[in-house]
Amino acid sequence: MKPFLDDDFLLTTPTAKELYQVAKSMPILDYHCHIDPKEIAQDRRFENITQVWLGGDHYKWRLMRANGVDEFWVTGDAPDREKFQKWAETLEVAIGNPLYHWSHLELRRYFGYEGVLNGETAEEVWQLTQEKLSQPGMSARNLILNSGVTLLCTTDDPADDLRWHKALRDDESFPVKVLPAWRPDNAMGLEKPDYPAYLERLGHAAGMEIKSFEDLKEALKRRMAEFDAMGCRASDHGITQAVCRPVSDEELERVFQKGVEGQRLTQEEIEAFQTGFLTFVAGEYNKLGWVMQLHYGCRRNTNTKMFEKVGRDTGYDCVLQGVPSLKLAEFLNLLNDHDALPRMVCYSLNSNDDDGINSVLGSFQDGTPLGRVQQGSAWWFNDHKAGITKQLTSFANAGLLGNFIGMLTDSRSFLSYPRHEYFRRILCQLIGGWVENGEYPADGKALEKIVKGICYNNAVEFFGFPLEKV
Amino acid sequence: MKPFLDDDFLLTTPTAKELYQVAKSMPILDYHCHIDPKEIAQDRRFENITQVWLGGDHYKWRLMRANGVDEFWVTGDAPDREKFQKWAETLEVAIGNPLYHWSHLELRRYFGYEGVLNGETAEEVWQLTQEKLSQPGMSARNLILNSGVTLLCTTDDPADDLRWHKALRDDESFPVKVLPAWRPDNAMGLEKPDYPAYLERLGHAAGMEIKSFEDLKEALKRRMAEFDAMGCRASDHGITQAVCRPVSDEELERVFQKGVEGQRLTQEEIEAFQTGFLTFVAGEYNKLGWVMQLHYGCRRNTNTKMFEKVGRDTGYDCVLQGVPSLKLAEFLNLLNDHDALPRMVCYSLNSNDDDGINSVLGSFQDGTPLGRVQQGSAWWFNDHKAGITKQLTSFANAGLLGNFIGMLTDSRSFLSYPRHEYFRRILCQLIGGWVENGEYPADGKALEKIVKGICYNNAVEFFGFPLEKV
Amino acid sequence: MKPFLDDDFLLTTPTAKELYQVAKSMPILDYHCHIDPKEIAQDRRFENITQVWLGGDHYKWRLMRANGVDEFWVTGDAPDREKFQKWAETLEVAIGNPLYHWSHLELRRYFGYEGVLNGETAEEVWQLTQEKLSQPGMSARNLILNSGVTLLCTTDDPADDLRWHKALRDDESFPVKVLPAWRPDNAMGLEKPDYPAYLERLGHAAGMEIKSFEDLKEALKRRMAEFDAMGCRASDHGITQAVCRPVSDEELERVFQKGVEGQRLTQEEIEAFQTGFLTFVAGEYNKLGWVMQLHYGCRRNTNTKMFEKVGRDTGYDCVLQGVPSLKLAEFLNLLNDHDALPRMVCYSLNSNDDDGINSVLGSFQDGTPLGRVQQGSAWWFNDHKAGITKQLTSFANAGLLGNFIGMLTDSRSFLSYPRHEYFRRILCQLIGGWVENGEYPADGKALEKIVKGICYNNAVEFFGFPLEKV
Repeated sequence: MKPFLDDDFLLTTPTAKELYQVAKSMPILDYHCHIDPKEIAQDRRFENITQVWLGGDHYKWRLMRANGVDEFWVTGDAPDREKFQKWAETLEVAIGNPLYHWSHLELRRYFGYEGVLNGETAEEVWQLTQEKLSQPGMSARNLILNSGVTLLCTTDDPADDLRWHKALRDDESFPVKVLPAWRPDNAMGLEKPDYPAYLERLGHAAGMEIKSFEDLKEALKRRMAEFDAMGCRASDHGITQAVCRPVSDEELERVFQKGVEGQRLTQEEIEAFQTGFLTFVAGEYNKLGWVMQLHYGCRRNTNTKMFEKVGRDTGYDCVLQGVPSLKLAEFLNLLNDHDALPRMVCYSLNSNDDDGINSVLGSFQDGTPLGRVQQGSAWWFNDHKAGITKQLTSFANAGLLGNFIGMLTDSRSFLSYPRHEYFRRILCQLIGGWVENGEYPADGKALEKIVKGICYNNAVEFFGFPLEKV
Repeated sequence: MKPFLDDDFLLTTPTAKELYQVAKSMPILDYHCHIDPKEIAQDRRFENITQVWLGGDHYKWRLMRANGVDEFWVTGDAPDREKFQKWAETLEVAIGNPLYHWSHLELRRYFGYEGVLNGETAEEVWQLTQEKLSQPGMSARNLILNSGVTLLCTTDDPADDLRWHKALRDDESFPVKVLPAWRPDNAMGLEKPDYPAYLERLGHAAGMEIKSFEDLKEALKRRMAEFDAMGCRASDHGITQAVCRPVSDEELERVFQKGVEGQRLTQEEIEAFQTGFLTFVAGEYNKLGWVMQLHYGCRRNTNTKMFEKVGRDTGYDCVLQGVPSLKLAEFLNLLNDHDALPRMVCYSLNSNDDDGINSVLGSFQDGTPLGRVQQGSAWWFNDHKAGITKQLTSFANAGLLGNFIGMLTDSRSFLSYPRHEYFRRILCQLIGGWVENGEYPADGKALEKIVKGICYNNAVEFFGFPLEKV
Repeated sequence: MKPFLDDDFLLTTPTAKELYQVAKSMPILDYHCHIDPKEIAQDRRFENITQVWLGGDHYKWRLMRANGVDEFWVTGDAPDREKFQKWAETLEVAIGNPLYHWSHLELRRYFGYEGVLNGETAEEVWQLTQEKLSQPGMSARNLILNSGVTLLCTTDDPADDLRWHKALRDDESFPVKVLPAWRPDNAMGLEKPDYPAYLERLGHAAGMEIKSFEDLKEALKRRMAEFDAMGCRASDHGITQAVCRPVSDEELERVFQKGVEGQRLTQEEIEAFQTGFLTFVAGEYNKLGWVMQLHYGCRRNTNTKMFEKVGRDTGYDCVLQGVPSLKLAEFLNLLNDHDALPRMVCYSLNSNDDDGINSVLGSFQDGTPLGRVQQGSAWWFNDHKAGITKQLTSFANAGLLGNFIGMLTDSRSFLSYPRHEYFRRILCQLIGGWVENGEYPADGKALEKIVKGICYNNAVEFFGFPLEKV
């Protein structure tokens, strides 16, 4: 029996263990996360483990609710110590859940705690973490730096003034690159009631009034230029599913005006607008050399009662099923027809889509190094051993795994970098298993190149970040 | 090589074997089966193995037909001995099929037969089983009792008079609790030609005339009170897929009258009625503290010719694909909005839905102990090593496996309890594997609690059965 | 560690290795491929490995494009040696891809090359293969013969005059049976612009004019008789998804005329015509005793720009998601109602459909030996260890794996027979694993029969080929 979470965690073969030594030595390039740049700029500190772990982590909140914990201890006003107790007790039945692994990895890597967190040990862990968190090494910046991160991309609205990114750029004391990533979901939300207010904010940021879809495009271009100047290399879109309903420019203007006036749009109009919007920005990304990330397959805020009580991003989202791969194919084809297909990374929240996505993407490769389009890493509800293994296997079966750009944290927390470790262990176990089983030659040089590529170098090249390969 | 079906069947690690010793010692709580309570009350006996095995088991019938066996030996008038021969020969090519395992487990556990059943050994098995079946220990009651069952729930129509349940309740000589479970599919079948006749039966049972949807609700409430008095704690619904089309009470009455008059209902009207019906009963279940089970994702009676020849439940049903998780989410949200969401267990016949269901259910947890809603055990076409492992893994990845209420037989046969053994072995192999692989601590106490919970104690608590935890 | 691609490739247990010795000894019956019969008749020879490997293999083309290779070296005019270099370099990152295995298996089995193909070794492999290809044993016929093939079915249009098949039939020097297989996709393509031209070709072949759907049916019957006389036992259909929209004969004629006149058909009309067409041919197959193969779940020519540049079958096809199993069930039921259900093999390109298909097919078994309907082998994008294992497991869980008709190459190449080896290794590893794990008895005789059946004998019987079982 392997001890719980030992040095060879998830690694069972000699080759897997060897490969992991390579993987472990690589820096971290976290090209998609939700960390607040202000907290990095201000080098935020934390009073206790509840603040770090349970402040905004809806993954944990879901499990607590499923364990009979009242909302008072989840997002409510309960004391931090009590909330932590409830979480520790929840872990006792979380056997097989990735949060079990992440939580213990974080306790080991950041706090040196080698035990098991449960209701009985919660007090000793609370004491230990509180003491550690008071030490200088546990500030936001030090957590990032000591995790081996060379670069991270936050998630930023086009209307954002990027002041914290500017502050970080000008602060030579912090060697990690913190770049903005462009997430224009609000700018595409024509059907939302607060859209006019958003346009005002965006116009303000772009220094112009937005009265038409043409204006909107101009404003976005100005903001893209600004983001680009700040080093932005990646955009990101959270959409329900791919759309492909191209209409004329006149029709787009008509729909835009209708939406801005607050009239209720039809589903067709919404899709037409999204298609027009995405086609435009994709073309611009392509010119700028940015990578377009598409996250889809998620139904958000499913629980109306709780949405009204605790708002968005609180653990009430779910996987969308029955998303047709065809729509993605049609959308990519539309972009391709207009020479507007940028480098792209596609993520579906439904792991049943893995093979479908990979087969679609394989139809839009065009001789761009590392591929023009890639499936993204297993994500959110799939970010576990089974999901990651499935995504890697699907990617390998359908394409060239050696070109994969690998993992990201997608996290709001400064303690989430062990998710890269988790991914790397699963990757090395999978690849190492193939080698041990005679499915790939035991060619150390070739394997090292592949592992280094997936862990770090491919992302450097694919996004074109100002980093050296390692 | 492990011998075929030995004591460590499906168990390959020391931890798995240890855990199985715990699992094996637990009683059986079969909260969903299709056994006829009359057969228990009358303590039915069987003349031969064909009566037990091939009398109503459409799982076996399907395989026989796929092996070139004419319907004469399947549901036809062939002699029992010949039918058994055909089944034995079919097993020879059933490698990897769960019926291969179930059949041999049943031969070992109930008849002490350690060999392999095939065309050549059929005669010796026939003789052996015939002799054993003539012994007193092989009556319906003794089969249940000696299998370690403490409680079982049958499947009962609201119009049923529960006479056999009453007889069993009053018979102190049989210590196993046999409770009714409420299955109102007929009461929801407004679009069926025999619906008016059903309403008459239901009205008779409830002591009232049913002339409106309001009447129907009143009749159902009366019958629920009766079921509740008989110890009922669970309802069950077999639906094609989740529905969510709420309409006004007036519209419901209009649709009800239209249906009762035998007019053809539109799909929208059917869904509106089902939504109204399910919302009503769910609210009542919630008041009574009953658990609502939803079985969906099945297309029944696919083969018209054979349906006309041999009727329903004869092996012509299939998995429905493309069932959207969204509908389930919308339905749960509707119930939640009306404070009518009972404890619920959801089962889809399509194992591709596992992750989707679990992500939806995770959005409706509300601090109820063990979770307000759970995904049910792998079912029917998924009741095998791959399907059970997939369901357990999905459950663990998305939620708290330690809170899972575990297995049921879903069977019409008195010899099906080894399906619990089968499930427990797979469960212990999976969990034991995680421990052996360092993914969960080798904490015997915590593991024992989890295994006991899934095998028995969680179901006791979740349904609120009058049983002691073990 | 097992050496790369050694004799025990993919086999890890003693039982798996033993079973593979049985499998290995079996001849190959390739009942579905895309080899050009002319090339067999003329005993084609190849100048270099690029001609064999990269001449028409869109599987490889996709990977090359994904590795940054410009179309010039893919389907363009680059020199053969350079194209080969690009392919060799692509393999370096193709870890886990089935083409990695197939390519090296082919190098070993046909060229005796035991090394690893990559950018550095490309030159030595080029030299070696060029030399070997100049030897007599490397002609088309010898490649087939030395691969152990006893019979293969090509893929032929009803309008084809079968001249090369006749030549092969009359040539006693080649002992391998080369039979036509009937693929009437063109004859069903009423909505295509070139349909009238096709009808003319077909009419010419049938010796009649085709002016109505009735004429079309008559012409098809004449051609079927011709195919049947040439030994045809199998038909094949490539459809997007199953259809079931039966209409009257009058309506079929109306739709037919509309299509022939070049008017745009509605989706409903297309489905009605396809339903009528498929119902007719299925009934004829049934009379002739032919097997009907249905390949579905594929969206072809997704990339418009490249379709216009390089045409069809060039690597721009993708998996269709969300194909409902229900349609297949309805179509089979329609055929069954008309006593027109032939023996059938169903393949979906989406492996998520495996369980759904098997559950549908299980509802149309009727006592025909080996089953009336079977799921086909994992196919195209699923033709790898994971996909094959998944298909076999689904087949075994839902039906009788021992009756499975097994593997085919589906290939345009004379070097593809190692795909049978690949399949057999995976099969033996799976079955052997069950035996080693105590899930099936170590009954050598029963296992040998099962393995021989799946590798060869079942296909002989199912299709009714004029071959002896082995």
